[in-house]
Amino acid sequence: MKYKLAEVKGGTVTSPQGFLAGATEAAVKYKGRLDLGILYSEKPCASAAVFTGNKVKAAPILVSMKNMEKGKVRAVLANSGCANACTGDKGLKDASETAWLLAAKLGIPRSQVIVASTGVIGTNLPLKRVGAGISKISLTRDGGHKLEKAIMTTDTRPKEIAVKVTDSVGQYVIGGIAKGAGMIHPNMATLLGFITTDASVEISFLRKALKTAIDNTINMVTIDGDTSTNDMVSIMANGASDTEEITGKNGKNFQEALNYVCRFLARSIAADGEGATKLIEVSIEGAKSAADAKKIARTVAGSSLVKSAIHGNDPNWGRIVAALGRGGAAMEEKYVDVFLQDEPMMRQGSPLPFEKNKLSKKLKTGEVKIRVCLNIGSGKAVAWGCDLSQEYVTINSDYTT
Amino acid sequence: MKYKLAEVKGGTVTSPQGFLAGATEAAVKYKGRLDLGILYSEKPCASAAVFTGNKVKAAPILVSMKNMEKGKVRAVLANSGCANACTGDKGLKDASETAWLLAAKLGIPRSQVIVASTGVIGTNLPLKRVGAGISKISLTRDGGHKLEKAIMTTDTRPKEIAVKVTDSVGQYVIGGIAKGAGMIHPNMATLLGFITTDASVEISFLRKALKTAIDNTINMVTIDGDTSTNDMVSIMANGASDTEEITGKNGKNFQEALNYVCRFLARSIAADGEGATKLIEVSIEGAKSAADAKKIARTVAGSSLVKSAIHGNDPNWGRIVAALGRGGAAMEEKYVDVFLQDEPMMRQGSPLPFEKNKLSKKLKTGEVKIRVCLNIGSGKAVAWGCDLSQEYVTINSDYTT
Repeated sequence: MKYKLAEVKGGTVTSPQGFLAGATEAAVKYKGRLDLGILYSEKPCASAAVFTGNKVKAAPILVSMKNMEKGKVRAVLANSGCANACTGDKGLKDASETAWLLAAKLGIPRSQVIVASTGVIGTNLPLKRVGAGISKISLTRDGGHKLEKAIMTTDTRPKEIAVKVTDSVGQYVIGGIAKGAGMIHPNMATLLGFITTDASVEISFLRKALKTAIDNTINMVTIDGDTSTNDMVSIMANGASDTEEITGKNGKNFQEALNYVCRFLARSIAADGEGATKLIEVSIEGAKSAADAKKIARTVAGSSLVKSAIHGNDPNWGRIVAALGRGGAAMEEKYVDVFLQDEPMMRQGSPLPFEKNKLSKKLKTGEVKIRVCLNIGSGKAVAWGCDLSQEYVTINSDYTT
Repeated sequence: MKYKLAEVKGGTVTSPQGFLAGATEAAVKYKGRLDLGILYSEKPCASAAVFTGNKVKAAPILVSMKNMEKGKVRAVLANSGCANACTGDKGLKDASETAWLLAAKLGIPRSQVIVASTGVIGTNLPLKRVGAGISKISLTRDGGHKLEKAIMTTDTRPKEIAVKVTDSVGQYVIGGIAKGAGMIHPNMATLLGFITTDASVEISFLRKALKTAIDNTINMVTIDGDTSTNDMVSIMANGASDTEEITGKNGKNFQEALNYVCRFLARSIAADGEGATKLIEVSIEGAKSAADAKKIARTVAGSSLVKSAIHGNDPNWGRIVAALGRGGAAMEEKYVDVFLQDEPMMRQGSPLPFEKNKLSKKLKTGEVKIRVCLNIGSGKAVAWGCDLSQEYVTINSDYTT
C-alpha cells in the first residue's frame, strides 16, 4: 500500500479513534472562560513526552516527568491561568493532588495521568475550584476543540490539526493541539502541545519519533527568546485503529506524518506569537553542519532588530548578516548569499543593488522568507519566528497587574 | 601619596593633557548634523582596543585591528550614518583610504590611525564627502564634546566622563566617550567608546587593564541581544602628565580608575538604550563561579519579558526566575532568593507574599534593581540593561526606509 497523508477537515486531538476530551470554566484566574480541560484515551496507550529545558521546572512538569517514565500515560489534565511554577513544596503537592483527582474520576492508576499548567508564575493553584472543575467536565468525541480553548492564554486563534495516514501498516490518524504566544524559545518547547494517534506504536520508537519531530519543528520556533518553566509536548498512541505495531523498522511514514503535524503546530505558534502580524521563516543552507545551521537559523529568527525591521516592512538586510555573525556557527562573510522574499540582497559577501520601495511592498504580507546560503558545507535548517510589534510590549508590560 | 579619584566637571575625552578633537557636518547620510570626528594626541601614545566578537566584522574594524597591533595608535577617525559593514573589498579600500587621509592631515604614519564607523549596514562610505570633511575639521582642546555628538546615532544624550586620579605614580586624568542605543549586546562591546589618558602606561599592561575593565562593565550591558559588526572601545595613553610609567606592578589604582570610567559609560549606555525609560541593574550573588554569575546576569537583563514587565511597572518576578533557569548556569531552585527593588519576592525557592500595588509604585522610577542570591557559591556579577518599550519597536521598524 502506498503512503498517503491527508489533512482531516476540522481535525483536532480527538480525531483519532478512542480519544475523548472536554473542558470547563473553573475560574482558575478569570471567570467566564474555559481554563481547565481533560484529554483521555478509552484504551491503554504507549506514550512519550518532551519537557522544558529550563532548569527551573514547574510542579506539573516534575509530576508529569515521573508519571511518563513507564510510557503508559492515557490522560492529561491541563489548565491555563496559573503556571504552578516557583511554588515550592506546596506546588508539588497541589499538582499531585490534581493528578490523583483525575485518576479517581477516570478509574485509572495515578501514574497514567500527566498534568500541564500555563499562566502566571509564583501563584498557587486554586485547588478547590480545580477539583470541582474536574468532576464537572464531561468527555466527548469532539471535545478536542474545547480542550484547545482551555489551554490558550494570549493566543489569538486555536492551533489544531489532524492527518489521516494510509501506510503499509494500515490506516491511522494523528491529531494535535498546541498553545504558544509568549515565553517561546523552546529548549524543548516553550508551549503546551498534545498529540494523539490511534496507530499502535512501540513505546521506544514513539519516544524517538517524538524527539526527532520536535527537534526540527517546535524547537525551531522562537517568539521572544524566553524559555518557559512549564511547557511540554506529549503524544499518546492507543492502537484503536488496529494497525500493525509501528516500530523503528516500519516507522518511516509515521515519522514523516508526525513531522507534518509538528511542523503545522510550530508554524501556527510562530505566526500567532504575542503581538505578531507576520510569520518569519528563516532557511539556512550550506552550513558546516546541521547543528550550525540550526543555531544560526534560530539566532536570525530571534533577533529583535530583524523582527522590528520586518514589522515595519524595512528591507534592512544588514541586520540579518549581523545576526548571522553572532550566531556562534562557522561562517566566512565572503561566501555568504542572502535572499529576502527570494530577492538577492548579498552575493559572496558583497551587497547587491535593489529597489527599496519595491522590496518594502513585498514585505507587506503575512509571511516573510529569509534565505541564507553560507556556501561552506551541506548543513541546513529552518526556523520560525514572528515580527516584533509595539503590541508585544503592550501585552507584556501589564500581564499580572 | 594616597589614591584619590574625582570626577572632572564637564569632563570628556579631551580632558587629559595633550589630546585634541573636532568634528564636522560631512553629510555621510544626513545633512545638518555632526557626523565625522577626529581624536588626536599631540604626543606618541601607548594604545589598546577591544573589537566586536561578531564573526562579520566591518571594514573599519579590520583596518583598525591591523593598525592597533603595535599598540602605537594616536589618532581616531569616527563617523556615524554609515557602518561600512558587509561592503566587501570596496569597503576595505574605502576604510584604508580614510585612514590614509587622516594620517596625511596629521603628518603621522598610517599605522597610528584607527577608524570607526556606525550606521546602516551594507552601504558604502561617501568617500568624497568624508575626504572633504577630514580636511575641514579643526582640532581643539575641548573638541571632545563635538566628537561625541558626531558619533551619536539613536542616542538621546551624550555619554562623556573624565576623572582626575591622584596616585603614587603622580596625577593624571582619564577621559572617555561612548555611543550606544541599539544593536547592543557586546561580545566585546556593541558600541563605540574612546578613552584617553595623560598617564604614561606600558602597552602590555594597558591592553590587560582595558580588557579587564570592559569585561566587567561595557560587556555586561545588553539592550537588545544583537551584537554589532562595527564596534570597538579604544584607549590611548600619551604620558603628557609626566607620571611614572604605570605597569602591572603599580597599576592597581589605574585599573580601578579605568573601571570607574567604563562603568559610568556602561550605565549611561544602558540607561539610554533605544526607547528606554529605565536603567535595569541585575546583581547576581552566590553563583557557583563568576562566569556563571555573568552569564545569568546578562540573561536576566536581556529577557524581553522581564524588560517588558519593568516597563509596565509590573512586579511579575516569576519572569526573573524563568530567565535564571534558562541562563545556562548551575542553580537549584530550592536555594534561590530573589529581590526586586530590595523587596524579597522569593526565599529558598518559595514565593513570599507582597503588596502588588505598593511594589508597582516602587517600580515607577528611573532605575530598577534586581538582586538574586543563588546561595551555592561565591561567584557574583552585575549586568545592566533597560526596559523594552513600544518606542524601541517604533525606532527599529523604520530605520532605513
